[in-house]
Amino acid sequence: MKRVGLDLGGTYIKGGIVDEANRIVARGATPTMAEREAEEIIRDMASLVKKLTEEAGITLRDIAGIGIGSPGTIDAGSGVVLYSNNIRWENVPLAELLGKMLTEDADCGVIKVRVSNDANCAALGEMVCDTDSGIQSAVLLTLGTGVGSGIILNGKLYEGEQPGGAELGHMVICHGGRQCSCGRKGCLEAYVSASALVEDARQAARNTEKSLLCVLAGAELLCPPEKIQQSAMDGLTEKNQDRLDGLNGKHVIEAVRQKDPAAVKVFEQYLEYLGCGITNIINIFRPEVIYLGGGICEGFDLMEETLQKYIRENCFGGEIAAVAQIKKAAHGNDAGIIGAAALIDLT
Amino acid sequence: MKRVGLDLGGTYIKGGIVDEANRIVARGATPTMAEREAEEIIRDMASLVKKLTEEAGITLRDIAGIGIGSPGTIDAGSGVVLYSNNIRWENVPLAELLGKMLTEDADCGVIKVRVSNDANCAALGEMVCDTDSGIQSAVLLTLGTGVGSGIILNGKLYEGEQPGGAELGHMVICHGGRQCSCGRKGCLEAYVSASALVEDARQAARNTEKSLLCVLAGAELLCPPEKIQQSAMDGLTEKNQDRLDGLNGKHVIEAVRQKDPAAVKVFEQYLEYLGCGITNIINIFRPEVIYLGGGICEGFDLMEETLQKYIRENCFGGEIAAVAQIKKAAHGNDAGIIGAAALIDLT
Repeated sequence: MKRVGLDLGGTYIKGGIVDEANRIVARGATPTMAEREAEEIIRDMASLVKKLTEEAGITLRDIAGIGIGSPGTIDAGSGVVLYSNNIRWENVPLAELLGKMLTEDADCGVIKVRVSNDANCAALGEMVCDTDSGIQSAVLLTLGTGVGSGIILNGKLYEGEQPGGAELGHMVICHGGRQCSCGRKGCLEAYVSASALVEDARQAARNTEKSLLCVLAGAELLCPPEKIQQSAMDGLTEKNQDRLDGLNGKHVIEAVRQKDPAAVKVFEQYLEYLGCGITNIINIFRPEVIYLGGGICEGFDLMEETLQKYIRENCFGGEIAAVAQIKKAAHGNDAGIIGAAALIDLT
Repeated sequence: MKRVGLDLGGTYIKGGIVDEANRIVARGATPTMAEREAEEIIRDMASLVKKLTEEAGITLRDIAGIGIGSPGTIDAGSGVVLYSNNIRWENVPLAELLGKMLTEDADCGVIKVRVSNDANCAALGEMVCDTDSGIQSAVLLTLGTGVGSGIILNGKLYEGEQPGGAELGHMVICHGGRQCSCGRKGCLEAYVSASALVEDARQAARNTEKSLLCVLAGAELLCPPEKIQQSAMDGLTEKNQDRLDGLNGKHVIEAVRQKDPAAVKVFEQYLEYLGCGITNIINIFRPEVIYLGGGICEGFDLMEETLQKYIRENCFGGEIAAVAQIKKAAHGNDAGIIGAAALIDLT
């Protein structure tokens, strides 16, 4: 049966009707306007669901359920968003409210509504869309502002035994190290988020007389990054380093691609931390696949070999035990919608 | 039905008949003599099983199966010991061989044999023996020469998706830190094993003019440790520090109990590392209980409050998410036997 997948974000609520082959057959979006009351936002989610079913030429009776990926800490059992910093929700019974609104309006009986963390949904989505369709276990790390994670064990989403689990980004890898947003020091997130990479690159560029990073950061509107060559730095002055405020993950990846020494050095250190975190994850779960997502994975080709070598050399049990394959999360936003829909079957 | 639990160790093979209420109703042991061929050792395991059934007044037909806890990396699906440093096994099809030997001798049909890592069995054993019988999720850390771990999720043993998983002792908490036996640097094991605690205490005592640690380490044969008072150090000379080679975990715990400053300082740092590792584990699994085992847990009363406070303050999601209870693993060797027997039902 078809299912609805919703991806509740800080800016947009995106959604789709997902068919039995995990294809999105109708899609839509509506602004979140997160500053509103939760109930208003959820009413818009209900409207989106109805719009999507109409577009797909079906009714609510034709869908097996509605899955929702939400930022924050979720009680998956009850479908309550316990806390979300992004949308400023606390103890919102999302599944119950959405279910009620749809049932009242459409008189279609009880609708199954499932909620999980958005990174969990993305992990499920990547797995069900993987062309290597035999995969039953995988871990997704999304390298963005923070580090989200989703864990698939034995074909199903693993969310921890109680709410607040499966938070692999908040595994300390450097005891007493960098301050993390969660309050601890040394979490994986503080080293391998895109924000961490950018901040490290910014520091490195500041400490380097001339770095392509400065040019890239300031030149975005002048020409596409790939057109900028090392020679563009000839005119670089100290003042250009002010441009570093605008540096982003894509700039860093581009500078690495163009072999800027400062960027390459920072990236090597970044991969070392990422390899360390992935090795920890493998020693615990031994999944078949590690998916890496987020904008900086545009540079996945620069990461894959180094990471695969690192984990081969560092995982417990060496050659004897199974070592995961590292893959690029290839389905971006669609994975969030498809994975949310998959909550109906795979939780 | 009754089950047999075997605990294959480097020195002894211990075993028991375990009844439906998880009590050991017959028990026995035989020397491992690990230098022998694997098949000879397994033949002794078969003999032990037969001896145990005779002692319990039952036959092999009366048991639901045989569970074995083995050191090393196990392929639980096939019951093969892939690699064990302790007993120097490599690719030994333990389940198959033991099953064949017993079937040939006793003509009793196919016997179900399950093998898992010994720490996994100990975790299962602790859970099924816990008087708080509603527990469905737990993680055991055994703080010994190394750090073993066992993970129970949703009432069943979790061994990883492929062999070589559930190795929580080999999660790096200090990237680039202390050398671990597994080849990596900074693993939890390198900081929170009993060996690490003793080595840290030894260093601290060497750097302290007079420490109770020196007295305790050398005085074992002279009087029981609890009789030694701070005053015994009056005659301590530098030469006494040679005694430190004999220092063990119990000495350190006793010195902490007697408030020896060097020992207390080392122990505080130890608990900080242990708290860090436990917090990582909670952020991933959110189990109801964390069991701590191993000889140094004789000092559990000195650890409990500090650890519980640490995890309350450091776990992701703070008050919103569930924080595990830390308990002493109370069943020692019996947990290994009872948990091995429980493999028959709970894997």
